Order: sequence, then structure tokens, then C-alpha cells
Amino acid sequence: MTVHIDGRAIAYEVRARVAAEVAAAFPDPATAPGLATVLVGEDPASAVYVANKRRAVREAGMRDLHRALPAGTTQAGVAAVIDELAADPAVDAILLQLPLPPGLDAAALIDRIPAGKDVDGLTTHSAGLLARGEQGLRPCTPSGVIELLESTGVTIRGANAVVVGRSALVGHPMAELLLQRDATVTVVHRHTADLAAVTRTADILVVAAGVPAMIGAEHVKPGATVIDVGIHRTDNGLTGDVRIAELDGIATRVTPVPGGVGPMTIAMLMVNTLRAAGHGQSARCSRS
Amino acid sequence: MTVHIDGRAIAYEVRARVAAEVAAAFPDPATAPGLATVLVGEDPASAVYVANKRRAVREAGMRDLHRALPAGTTQAGVAAVIDELAADPAVDAILLQLPLPPGLDAAALIDRIPAGKDVDGLTTHSAGLLARGEQGLRPCTPSGVIELLESTGVTIRGANAVVVGRSALVGHPMAELLLQRDATVTVVHRHTADLAAVTRTADILVVAAGVPAMIGAEHVKPGATVIDVGIHRTDNGLTGDVRIAELDGIATRVTPVPGGVGPMTIAMLMVNTLRAAGHGQSARCSRS
Repeated sequence: MTVHIDGRAIAYEVRARVAAEVAAAFPDPATAPGLATVLVGEDPASAVYVANKRRAVREAGMRDLHRALPAGTTQAGVAAVIDELAADPAVDAILLQLPLPPGLDAAALIDRIPAGKDVDGLTTHSAGLLARGEQGLRPCTPSGVIELLESTGVTIRGANAVVVGRSALVGHPMAELLLQRDATVTVVHRHTADLAAVTRTADILVVAAGVPAMIGAEHVKPGATVIDVGIHRTDNGLTGDVRIAELDGIATRVTPVPGGVGPMTIAMLMVNTLRAAGHGQSARCSRS
Repeated sequence: MTVHIDGRAIAYEVRARVAAEVAAAFPDPATAPGLATVLVGEDPASAVYVANKRRAVREAGMRDLHRALPAGTTQAGVAAVIDELAADPAVDAILLQLPLPPGLDAAALIDRIPAGKDVDGLTTHSAGLLARGEQGLRPCTPSGVIELLESTGVTIRGANAVVVGRSALVGHPMAELLLQRDATVTVVHRHTADLAAVTRTADILVVAAGVPAMIGAEHVKPGATVIDVGIHRTDNGLTGDVRIAELDGIATRVTPVPGGVGPMTIAMLMVNTLRAAGHGQSARCSRS
């Protein structure tokens, strides 16, 4: 019997806890934590993502401080907006929506965000704090995976955890978060000689390869927990990196796509916004 | 037939290459790269280490810019010296010798060193650059291990690499450097359930646990390369974390203690000093 981890329900609970904590800590809504989302250009997918984030902020009782910049905004123009938000004490958290229009240097712009307002945990400084295990804001998606694991009772300490993929956004910080929780962590990638031999050692298998349906029954140890971070739009709807149907009766727990990791990203963004404002015990990983 | 990797010889070659490059790039010794070593207090071991580093700097034709501060120097006092060195264009590289006397906050002082002068690669910013795979100065000991591996013809890409230990100084950056060279990397530590089962998967086993003689024949796959970063003073002389005699005929290559990794640390410090001055192709890992 393989449990499908209900990411929507867990995300809902996290967001409800954030809302309750905001209401308790900030009786005056005008002083509630404020998240500045910065959207450059007209990319429709980005517009939808930012709209979802802004709605979540408002639903949590926090302040929605959006900035829309035209597609032709220069590097210096975006930098000036970020610097203004960085200096503004009314702004607790800054999110620069990616990808940016061609010609803009995303890494350089992200690094203008002060670590304390880096709600996506993507600056070089935040990466350094994570690498050193120091207090800081962690990237939302891998934080959401930790929340999923811990809220469903998966023991991380001492477990063999294998992370497929090593992106700056997910795979790499995922490995760090698992290591800091005392898992034995292996990172695999396209140069790994025998992928299945490694993934079959995993008690916790986190797949963030960005390759549709690449992981199946032959990659999974009986009893494992399998977390699928992939999301791909296909003719048959949304699918992940994992052939989840094959794992029925093999894995103990899996995350579906959609409805698994996806909803956690916005939930953890809410946690991080609250943390950036100096609060937030709303999620287990906020205590790291 | 197990090869003992001759760290002294490789370190000598690296230092000779640095000296040659310094001589070619800086015909005027007064403008050669300058390393400022900062030693606080009278710890005899630290005094020896710093004296060795300073001698290596001079032998490489670089400028030895030492600062000795009395044991009672305050946090603000050390900070002021670092800030002065950070602002001085004649100083290319800064090394704060650890450990510091009790009462001083080493992490806070190290983080005052600008990333470009952070010759030990220990600031939060340098850790972030490493985590993100961006240009930066890397910690000297793990860089030295990479140099040992590459200069002895060990293939890192696609190899199974296991790192025992996860310290900020060695184990953690070691795993990062191996991952960036496309090894499949596993980090093990005291919470790892079955240490030998994991280490026996390693083509490259780097032991940086700080526990004398903890790794022996039962932990090593035939044909592996075993790098021993440990160094311990015992009644029988210096020993490492590895029971090296047991590996004869099992491992393909091992590093002895002393004479393996140890000499590489100062060699890589010379490479990093040259790199901090904007030069340095003297070692393979300077190209990362």
C-alpha cells in the first residue's frame, strides 16, 4: 500500500499556520510582513506565478508590494528598483521573478537583494549561509520537500537520501538541507555511471532532474519514500520526473504530480516572508 | 601494488610553478602578490604554521605581509586590522590564522575579509560562490586533494566519490569540488547507518573525519584511491584517519601521513595568493 503524500493539504496547513501567526503577531495589517514581487516583462507563465504568489500573500494577511516593470527595462533600471526595495524598511522580503527577459543578468540582480530579504534564498550570501549551516532563508522548493518529509513522519537522520539533479534552485540546496538533518546524502546527475544502483540505496529519493518519467520501478528500493520535484506539461496533462504508477506497492510513500511538491513552494514562500520579517515558527524547516 | 601518492613531490612542483609564474608576471618584486598573515596571540603550533606559510610566500617570490597581534587584542581590534588590510591595495590576500584566542568570534572576523582576498576560501561569500560553482577562492586543503587526484591521473568525472566528514574547512567543500568535477558524491558522517557499506562503493574515498585509524581494509573497495586528510600526533609518530598498511594490495593509490595531503595545503595557499592577485594557472584547480 503506497501512500500518496497530499501536498495540497500540507501546504494548506502551513499557510493556515502562517496566517494565524501573522494575525497574532501583527494586529495592525499595515505593519504586517510585506513581500515585494518584481516582475519584468510580459511572460504569461511568470505573470500567473506572480499572481498566485501575491494572492497567497494577501490570504495570509501580509502586505502585497508588487512592482511590474516593462520588458525593456535595463539592467540598471531593475537594479535601481531592487536597491530601492532593499533600502525600504517597509519591505521585508524581495522576490525577483525568473526568468528575466533576455539581456538581463539575473545572478547579478539577485545578489543585490540583502540576505535578510532574500525570500527565495537564491543570493550568493544565502547559498553560503546554507553551506555553512548558519541561520538564513532557504530556497522554497527544497524547504517544501523537507516540510513534506517531516510532516508525514519520515525519519531523515541516518537515512540514505539520494538527490537526482544538482540545480542551484532545487537539487543542490536539497542535498544541503538533507545533510544538515543528518541524512547520508548522495547527489547523482547525468555523469553518474549506474544511476539505478545508486538510487536503489535510497530510503529517501528526491528527483529533481527535469526529465519527464525518467525514474521508475527499477530505480526504487522497496519501502522508499519518493519525492518528485519534476513538473512537465504533456498531452496527457501534468507529469513529473517519476513514473509514479510503477511504484505502487514498492515505495512506501510518493508525491503525486500535480498536488505533491508543487503547492509547497508557495507555502514555504509564505513561511520565508514571515521569517524575513523576524517571525515564523510556522513550519518545521523555519527552525533550521 | 598500491601506489603511495607523493604529496611532498607534487606540492614541490606546484610551488615551483607558482614561483615561476610570479617571476614571469612580476619582474619587480615590490609589486609581487602580497599575503597578509594575521596571527593573534602566542599559540606555539599556530606560530609554527604561520612561519611555514610566510617562508613559502617568500620562497615563491611573493610579499610576506605579516601582522602579529597580542593575545589580549579585542574583537574590535582584530576587526580594525582586517579592515585596514581589506582596504589596502598593496595587500592581495588575507589569512587569519585559526584558532583564535578564546573570546574572539572567528566567523565574524573571517567574514570581514573581502571575497577577492579570502585566500583560505572560508568566508560566507566564498562558500556561496563554491556552492553555486562560480569563480572564487577555494579552501586550500580540499583544493590540494583535487590537485593530488588530477596530477596522479585519477578520473573524477563519473567516479563514485565518498567523503567521510562534513567540516566547513575540509569535508563540505571537498564534496562540492568533487561534485563540480562530475563525480557522484556521497557525504557520510557519524549518523551514517552502515559506514563500510557506503565507503565500499567509493572509487575515490576521501577521509576527513578527524578520528585516528577509523578507516581500514573493511571500508575500501579493491582498486579505490584513498585520500587521508587526517593527521594525529601519537606516541608512534604522526598518523592519519586511515590504517594505511591494511590497504596494501587493496587500494590502487593511497596518501601517506605524513607526506600526502599535508604538504598540499601550503602549496594551494601559494596558488590562491597568486590567484587573489589576478594570476595563477599554476594548479589544475586554479582553473575552476
